[in-house]
Amino acid sequence: MVDFKKLREESIRQARKDVKQSFSRDLLVIQAVNSVEELNTVINMLVNRLREWYGFYNPEFVKEMHSTEEFAAGIVSAEKKKDSMGADIEKKDNDIILALAKQIASLHKLKKDLTGYLENTMQEVCPNLNAVAGSFIGARLLAFAGSLKNLSEMTSSTVQLLGAEKALFRHLHGQGKSPKHGILVNHELVINAQFREKGKIARALADKIAIASKVDYFKGDFVGDKLRAELEKRFK
Amino acid sequence: MVDFKKLREESIRQARKDVKQSFSRDLLVIQAVNSVEELNTVINMLVNRLREWYGFYNPEFVKEMHSTEEFAAGIVSAEKKKDSMGADIEKKDNDIILALAKQIASLHKLKKDLTGYLENTMQEVCPNLNAVAGSFIGARLLAFAGSLKNLSEMTSSTVQLLGAEKALFRHLHGQGKSPKHGILVNHELVINAQFREKGKIARALADKIAIASKVDYFKGDFVGDKLRAELEKRFK
Repeated sequence: MVDFKKLREESIRQARKDVKQSFSRDLLVIQAVNSVEELNTVINMLVNRLREWYGFYNPEFVKEMHSTEEFAAGIVSAEKKKDSMGADIEKKDNDIILALAKQIASLHKLKKDLTGYLENTMQEVCPNLNAVAGSFIGARLLAFAGSLKNLSEMTSSTVQLLGAEKALFRHLHGQGKSPKHGILVNHELVINAQFREKGKIARALADKIAIASKVDYFKGDFVGDKLRAELEKRFK
Repeated sequence: MVDFKKLREESIRQARKDVKQSFSRDLLVIQAVNSVEELNTVINMLVNRLREWYGFYNPEFVKEMHSTEEFAAGIVSAEKKKDSMGADIEKKDNDIILALAKQIASLHKLKKDLTGYLENTMQEVCPNLNAVAGSFIGARLLAFAGSLKNLSEMTSSTVQLLGAEKALFRHLHGQGKSPKHGILVNHELVINAQFREKGKIARALADKIAIASKVDYFKGDFVGDKLRAELEKRFK
């Protein structure tokens, strides 16, 4: 007779083992790139708040500073113009503003660390995709696809439009032109191209990315530099 | 003859002076309360990211931790169960997760400091409003109104609905019931009331808040505890 209790225990053990082994390092890349995107949102939100707040005291300084990073770091040592329109600041009010500014500086630092981690992990997990698409765009493609496995199973025409889902479905419902590129629009080859060339380049780029991700998934030899060179020869 | 150059310079000087003097400390309360709200958004966003990310390694721990604060602080010393379904973690992957967790802990600290600053400044700038509405709700009311001056000019029925603009205009366009309370719904007297009593209490509370903010704006004597006591006597 079948020992159901034992069978059940054995199945659970196996399932737990499967869950444990289903993890692969491309998932870390996705977490890292999403974190970087979220940190961008966070930093922008807090810097806008700081601009408005500190603007009461030193509007001239706020107006001069355009980069968020410079601004958060600069507040600590900012000097006020003699004829400034800003109100006078009390120490306790200044302290809390400085605390916010320091927090933003530390978020900038974390973003830098995360970007470094992202680049290293991309290099390790999908060197070919990394060489062709760059670490940030490559990671975004992985995030859109969900995993390296999913990305490697996509045709190049799907890869070309990852990130343009909204425009694609608008087009399929009969409104608007068919999109030429999704996230690939941020790739340097596409950015530097003439407007009329962008679609063509995005198509060729997506071709190479589709190849690269397949090579990465099946752990083939490194051909990323060759793929990249072919593209650059054709379009630079 | 009029010396236009001198007149122009004099006007600009006067305008700059006016700008400088238009600042009042109730504006700081508004900045502080908006910061606290934004920090809540930020912390939630990053904690969700951390949960997903750390969940690869230690899903059992992530499931047990409900408070965001405990979670971010707990990760540093978290231990893994022997039969955990989580994947094994490498040092470099762990380091970046810890960096994110530490950042979140430091955002919690900033939120605490900001809340303390908010309470002190409310106490100083509008003690009566603070006593009746509490520092957080009082500050939110100031933020909705734009300044203490604006709030002090509002009728109590307007105060009652601050924060319920969407429901109010839906009602005015013929859809939905008229709202009974805006941000005041979070006041402890309203929270602890029976459902059918909430509207009545919000109305009485808004009355007292309208009085309190007028007293604060015109720098009258402290009557906040008296106003509050009248409310509590009636509804507790």
